[in-house]
Amino acid sequence: MSEPSTVTDPADPRLADYTGLTDVELRRRREPAEGLFIAEGEKVIRRAVEAGYRMRSMLLTPKWLDVMSDVIQAADAPVHVVEPGLAEAVTGYHVHRGALASMERKPLPEAADLLVGARRVAVLEGLVDHTNLGAIFRSAAALGMDAVLLSPDCADPLYRRAVKVSMGAVFAVPYARLDPWPAALETVRAAGFQLLALTPAGADDLAQAAPHRLPKAALMLGAEGDGLTQRALAAADRRVRIPMAHGIDSLNVGAAAAVAFYAVTAG
Amino acid sequence: MSEPSTVTDPADPRLADYTGLTDVELRRRREPAEGLFIAEGEKVIRRAVEAGYRMRSMLLTPKWLDVMSDVIQAADAPVHVVEPGLAEAVTGYHVHRGALASMERKPLPEAADLLVGARRVAVLEGLVDHTNLGAIFRSAAALGMDAVLLSPDCADPLYRRAVKVSMGAVFAVPYARLDPWPAALETVRAAGFQLLALTPAGADDLAQAAPHRLPKAALMLGAEGDGLTQRALAAADRRVRIPMAHGIDSLNVGAAAAVAFYAVTAG
Repeated sequence: MSEPSTVTDPADPRLADYTGLTDVELRRRREPAEGLFIAEGEKVIRRAVEAGYRMRSMLLTPKWLDVMSDVIQAADAPVHVVEPGLAEAVTGYHVHRGALASMERKPLPEAADLLVGARRVAVLEGLVDHTNLGAIFRSAAALGMDAVLLSPDCADPLYRRAVKVSMGAVFAVPYARLDPWPAALETVRAAGFQLLALTPAGADDLAQAAPHRLPKAALMLGAEGDGLTQRALAAADRRVRIPMAHGIDSLNVGAAAAVAFYAVTAG
Repeated sequence: MSEPSTVTDPADPRLADYTGLTDVELRRRREPAEGLFIAEGEKVIRRAVEAGYRMRSMLLTPKWLDVMSDVIQAADAPVHVVEPGLAEAVTGYHVHRGALASMERKPLPEAADLLVGARRVAVLEGLVDHTNLGAIFRSAAALGMDAVLLSPDCADPLYRRAVKVSMGAVFAVPYARLDPWPAALETVRAAGFQLLALTPAGADDLAQAAPHRLPKAALMLGAEGDGLTQRALAAADRRVRIPMAHGIDSLNVGAAAAVAFYAVTAG
């Protein structure tokens, strides 16, 4: 461990990882380029560490020093102690969870490697909303999906908001990018998976398709609103729908994902 | 119809229904007391009207006059046309959907009346979060639940945020309050329903419980975090869990609800 040190200057270069956290565009560029991501709050930080991510540094308000003492002990990373006002000046928002960690990214695995030994995978296309993406990861992990595969235009699962909404589930279920899209879907099929596209216009009921009986199933989901693109639909083996009632035209994508993950993993 | 009239004074008493929309506490008191609720955006307003709610008035920015002309024609309610800046001054936020309607509440039905003819109902306890409540209503309607029953401390499904997140599904699936709580659960049991409590500590897997085979099933769900209270759990006939994987301890309540509604209605 290194001794926690108090920082009082918002321009201190040791706080550079934490500047402008509310500037989504800036952070989306910076974090992958610099190989870092931000974990926020005690639980999420602990889960990131347990998942084997290396800590670059921590930023804590004083009252979190005790609670996090075991994490500080175990980590070989500088701990910067700042007053709440300084945390806000640096990050751009009131850090009410009082604890942030800058963590080092790991190299993303290849999709083909993730598929070895997997039986149920989620394939997400165009999920640009960090809240929906985080919620889907939480459900994917909780319901026992083996991996998540992302189209190149999906948002970053390690973006702070996605990590937070997922309650750290983005660390629990492995993920990779499918690139080029949708051609790389062939990798999934070649690994023995049947590609099921979830779409309100699907020919078959999800229940009738009995996805839990498939040896290997990949569930394809598109973004809220637009759903899967025609190109992605064309690449699927089968189109399935969740039956709708009461004149409602669609489920929220997070709800649809939870239902589909349950249908493919339960029983 | 009445001719749309332009309003230029934010203190004009004709705009009283729309003042301080961002003050949650104020609106939570005012709206039920005054027998109104606010529908926001073209789709939600149309759905409220289609569901038979009477319109008290509409507040539109000028560009929405054309789009809403049929609604204006059909409604016997004053239409107030205001510039975006005035809409913001009155409501407290930038009304980017440009259309608000003040609608008249209907008397809530009795739970016992809703249960006549129903086979699948959701029972919600302590859902105080409007976003979660709206999401659950959207899933309940989409997945074909017949009714939603609410503990007295659940939030108001007609609060603006809940209506919006539900995409108007709060108008599509009937709901009632169960009061006193949890004693009124006896009404549900007396109507022939088996009461299934969703809880991570449930003795039986949801899939093994095969709720879709029950003649009448009531699915009980508690709030994010705390779940069902001990009193509610004690009143249930059976406790069921959705199996968890990857070390995740729970699903988001909206995801859990979607899974449970699917399990009880599909097949």
